[in-house]
Amino acid sequence: MMSQREMKSLQERVDAITQTIKSGRLWDSIMEMAKYGATANGGVNRLALTETDNAVRIILMEWINRPNYHFFVDAIGNLFIRRDGATPSLDPVMTGSHLDTQPSGGKFDGIYGVLAGLEVFRTLDDLDMATVRPLELAVWANEEGCRFVPGCMGSACFAKPDDLPHWLAITDDESITVAQAVARFHKTLSGIPHRPLGTPVHAYVEAHIEQGPVLENTSATIGIVSGIQGCRDFQVTISGMEAHAGTTPASSRQDAMKTAVLLLRDLYTLMDSAGDECRFTVGAFQVYPNSSSVVPGQVVFNIDLRHPLQSSLTALGNKVIALCDKHTGRCSIRAKELRWRKPVEFSKVLPDLIQNAAHRLKLPKRVLPSGASHDAVNLHLCCPTGMIFVPCEGGISHNEKENAALADLHAGTQVLAEVLYRLAENIP
Amino acid sequence: MMSQREMKSLQERVDAITQTIKSGRLWDSIMEMAKYGATANGGVNRLALTETDNAVRIILMEWINRPNYHFFVDAIGNLFIRRDGATPSLDPVMTGSHLDTQPSGGKFDGIYGVLAGLEVFRTLDDLDMATVRPLELAVWANEEGCRFVPGCMGSACFAKPDDLPHWLAITDDESITVAQAVARFHKTLSGIPHRPLGTPVHAYVEAHIEQGPVLENTSATIGIVSGIQGCRDFQVTISGMEAHAGTTPASSRQDAMKTAVLLLRDLYTLMDSAGDECRFTVGAFQVYPNSSSVVPGQVVFNIDLRHPLQSSLTALGNKVIALCDKHTGRCSIRAKELRWRKPVEFSKVLPDLIQNAAHRLKLPKRVLPSGASHDAVNLHLCCPTGMIFVPCEGGISHNEKENAALADLHAGTQVLAEVLYRLAENIP
Repeated sequence: MMSQREMKSLQERVDAITQTIKSGRLWDSIMEMAKYGATANGGVNRLALTETDNAVRIILMEWINRPNYHFFVDAIGNLFIRRDGATPSLDPVMTGSHLDTQPSGGKFDGIYGVLAGLEVFRTLDDLDMATVRPLELAVWANEEGCRFVPGCMGSACFAKPDDLPHWLAITDDESITVAQAVARFHKTLSGIPHRPLGTPVHAYVEAHIEQGPVLENTSATIGIVSGIQGCRDFQVTISGMEAHAGTTPASSRQDAMKTAVLLLRDLYTLMDSAGDECRFTVGAFQVYPNSSSVVPGQVVFNIDLRHPLQSSLTALGNKVIALCDKHTGRCSIRAKELRWRKPVEFSKVLPDLIQNAAHRLKLPKRVLPSGASHDAVNLHLCCPTGMIFVPCEGGISHNEKENAALADLHAGTQVLAEVLYRLAENIP
Repeated sequence: MMSQREMKSLQERVDAITQTIKSGRLWDSIMEMAKYGATANGGVNRLALTETDNAVRIILMEWINRPNYHFFVDAIGNLFIRRDGATPSLDPVMTGSHLDTQPSGGKFDGIYGVLAGLEVFRTLDDLDMATVRPLELAVWANEEGCRFVPGCMGSACFAKPDDLPHWLAITDDESITVAQAVARFHKTLSGIPHRPLGTPVHAYVEAHIEQGPVLENTSATIGIVSGIQGCRDFQVTISGMEAHAGTTPASSRQDAMKTAVLLLRDLYTLMDSAGDECRFTVGAFQVYPNSSSVVPGQVVFNIDLRHPLQSSLTALGNKVIALCDKHTGRCSIRAKELRWRKPVEFSKVLPDLIQNAAHRLKLPKRVLPSGASHDAVNLHLCCPTGMIFVPCEGGISHNEKENAALADLHAGTQVLAEVLYRLAENIP
C-alpha cells in the first residue's frame, strides 16, 4: 500500500485512487443493501424512515466504523458520515444520496450514490490518504416521497431549516407524522450526536443512475448533469353530463371522455413539436362514473410537463392552459396548476470538474439535464453542486427490473473519486 | 258507470277507456312506489330480489286484489297479475316492465310500465269492462342487472326456459345466488301459485320512459319503438412500457395513454361521421399504474357501440377492429369483442297499433329505435311485441334526477290502454 507521502504529483495521487476503486466491493455492497426490503421480483421496497430504512443506515455505519469517521444525525432524519480532514475547520466536501426506495423500486436508485461515496472513502482508507478538507457522506431522508409526500424532504429541509415544522407535520397513510418517524429513527440510532440543519458545505456532488435511456442510447458512460429541469404540473377537470350510452345521440351528449381525447390529442401534437427536451406525461387519469354503458360525466387527469429551459417551460405551460380554454364548449374545462418549479442550472465548477475527470479517464460522456428531481436540486441552494449519471438498463427505474452494468457503476465511482479528491484537496 | 253492454261501437268503448284513465291515480301510485328504497336525493335504490323489491310486489298485488285477478310466480322470480278474460282458454295479452332500479336510479324507469298497466286494469274495472282475452301484467325480475349481472334476467329466462340453471347459478357481490334470492322471493310470496316459465302470450306491449332526449327534443309525446338497436361491446387493451415521466424522452416512450388518445380520436371521428343513429361510448377507462409521474404502461377501456341497423353495426364494429390494428406500433393493441347482440326489429303489428292509437288521440308521435335494452327484446322471441315510449326530462335516466311530465305519462297510458284493449278484444 502506498502512503500519501510516496506519491509525488497530483496526477499520480488521482490515478492511484481511481485505479484502487474496487468494483467488486461496490457491487457486493449494493447487493447486500438490496436484501433489506427485498421483493419477490428482485426489487426493493424500503419506504422512508421505516424500520428497514433505519436498519440499512446502521449497516452503512458499521461498514465504515473506523477512528477517522464521525456520525451525525439532524432534526429531519438525515445521516452524515464525516471523514476527518487535515484541516478540520474547513467546510466539508459532501457526496451522498438516499437509501429509501419506491414500494416496487430497484436496487440502484439512490443506493448507488451512497455506496459509490462509501467506495471512495474505503479507497482513500486503503491508500491511507488524507484530504485537506473533511469529506462527508450524506444519507438524505425521504427522497422518494412515497410514504411522506413530497420527496427530497431531508435535503430540502437541510437547505431551508426554517421549513422544519412544515415537514414534521406531514403524515403517512397511517397518520404517523414525520416527527414521529424521525423520533423513532433517532431512538434507533441513539448515541449518535445531533447536528444543526444547514451546516456549511464547500461543494456537493452526487452520483446516480440516469433513470432514463439517453446515456444508453448514445453509448455514453458518464452523464455530466447540467442541471435539473423545471416542471409545471396541472390537474385538468372536464365536466360534462352523465347519460345513457344506448339512448343519447352524439348531438345531445356532453361527453367528458370525448372532450378529454380531443384536448389531449392537441396537447400531444403540441408537445411532439416542442423538441426532444420536452417531457409531457399524462399518467393519472380518472373517468366518472367509469361504467361502460354510461357516457362519462367527468374526467380528471394530471399533466406532468418538464423542460430544462425556463422560457420553454413557461411557454408550453401557458399553451396547456390556452388549449384547455380552446376546448371548452360542450363540457367545461378547468386547469389547476399544482406546481411550477423552475429549472435549476448547476454552476459550471462541478460540471467542469466531472467533464475533465471523465475525459482523463477516457470515458464516453455526455452533458444532459436531469429529468428526475434529486437531492442535488436542494444542495444547489447551499453550495456549488454537480451530479454524475451512469446508464441504467433500458432507462428503466422506479421498477423492480431496474438494473445497471458493473462497469458503468465502476466508471461513475472513479469520476466521483477524482472530483471529491480534487475538491477536498482544494485543487480544482 | 257504463257497463260494456251499454257501449255500442268499438270506438265508443275505446274512447270511454282512454277518457277514464286517471292520471292523478297513476302519479300517486308512482310516488307511493318510490317510497320503497327512496334515496336522500329523490331517487330510488331498489336492487333486484331484495326485501324492498319483494315488498313492492306485494304492495302491487294488494292494490289490485279483486276477485277477477289471479297471481302467479315462476322459477326465475317473475310475478304475473292476470285479469280474467271472457274466453279464458285464449292466450293472454301481456303488458308490464320491472320494479327494480339502479343503485342510484329514478322513480320511473320500469315502474312506469308496470303502473301504467295497473292503471289500465283499474280503468277497465272502473268501467266494469271485460275483454275476450285475459290480460296479464308482468313484473319481470332483475331487469337492471346491477345486483345480478346481466340484466333482463326474468324475461330472458321466460323466453328461453332451458337457460334457467345458468341464471340460477349467478351470484351477487355477497355470493348470494339467484337461486337463493328467488327462493326468498317465493317464501315472501308464499301461497302464490307457481306457473311454468314460457307460458304462451298472444302479444306483449310495454310502456317505458325513453331514457334519452329524442322525444323531448322533437316535441313528441309518444315514441313508437321500431325495435331495439344492436350492440357490439369491445374491451381494448393497450400495452406499452412504464417509464419515468421526467427522464424518458418522447422518442423512447411506449406510452399507452398517448396511443389510446390517438386511437380514440380516430374512433370518435369515424363515429361522428356515421350518422345520428350511431351510439359510440367509451365509458370505462383504466390507466396503469395511474401515477402522475409515470408514463402509463397499460390502458384498458371498453367500447359500447350500438346501431339499429345490422349492416351498419357490423361495418362500424369491423372498423373499430381495423383502427386498433392500424394504431398498433409502439404499443400493442388487443381488441376483445365482449358481446355482439344483433338489432331487434319489432314486427309491424304492434308498432302500427301504437301509431294508430297515438294518431286517434292526436298525440305528437315519432318512430324511433330503443337505445336501451328492455324486457321487450326477450318477449319479441315469444310473440308480437311493441313498446310505447314517453319523454323523460332532459333525457336523463339511471339517475336520481330522472323525471317525467304527468301529461306525458298520462298520454302513454292512454295509448297503452287502447292497444291492450284492441288486442284483448281481437280487434286490431
